[in-house]
Amino acid sequence: MHALLLIAHGSRRRSSNEEIAALARSLDMRAGGRFASVRHAFLELAEPGIEQAIDRLAADGATAITVLPYFLAAGNHVREDIPALLDRGRARHPGVAIEMRPYLGTHAGVVDLLLEIALGEPG
Amino acid sequence: MHALLLIAHGSRRRSSNEEIAALARSLDMRAGGRFASVRHAFLELAEPGIEQAIDRLAADGATAITVLPYFLAAGNHVREDIPALLDRGRARHPGVAIEMRPYLGTHAGVVDLLLEIALGEPG
Repeated sequence: MHALLLIAHGSRRRSSNEEIAALARSLDMRAGGRFASVRHAFLELAEPGIEQAIDRLAADGATAITVLPYFLAAGNHVREDIPALLDRGRARHPGVAIEMRPYLGTHAGVVDLLLEIALGEPG
Repeated sequence: MHALLLIAHGSRRRSSNEEIAALARSLDMRAGGRFASVRHAFLELAEPGIEQAIDRLAADGATAITVLPYFLAAGNHVREDIPALLDRGRARHPGVAIEMRPYLGTHAGVVDLLLEIALGEPG
């Protein structure tokens, strides 16, 4: 079973965290069944945490987890904190292939979205 | 003179902040002259700060500044910290119209970019 795990920073503001849960649901719908399960997790300040989410997916029978960092820049969270937590997940679940994809900010399409927002033409 | 100000969180990692400067340059090129000036600023941890950037744009003759928050979720930074700093800029520069646009995470196109990254088809 191949799962997608969206990872966001997490906020003290509940509505902000709920945006992430809604985004994961949108991703699930848009993915058209290409991932058997689409979940979200937070690096800090909110639950579920990354290790907790990996544990749950493993318990659900995931054999592969594609990790999608919902981050815009390669700060310490993307370069160090998230990879370290994924390594802990790998150590606990050696039968699960955990692959981290590039963070959102690497996608060239971000510039176009920003320009649309700047010009008042959001999609 | 109408300026665009891209606001990012800021990182202790210099390369991360340089990504933001490069993004502002890309926005400038993609905007095709619709903004006379495109600059970036950081909420914290890096320079220029938001107030400093507003001061500079005002000194350069900006009469309108469109503020574009390079953030993914409406945490306290987007809801409170950035608006408070913009209010201080407005107080110091009453002749400059400072308008904050929605943050990047509000754009529906984000889901498609994420899915492309997840599927290994980055644009």
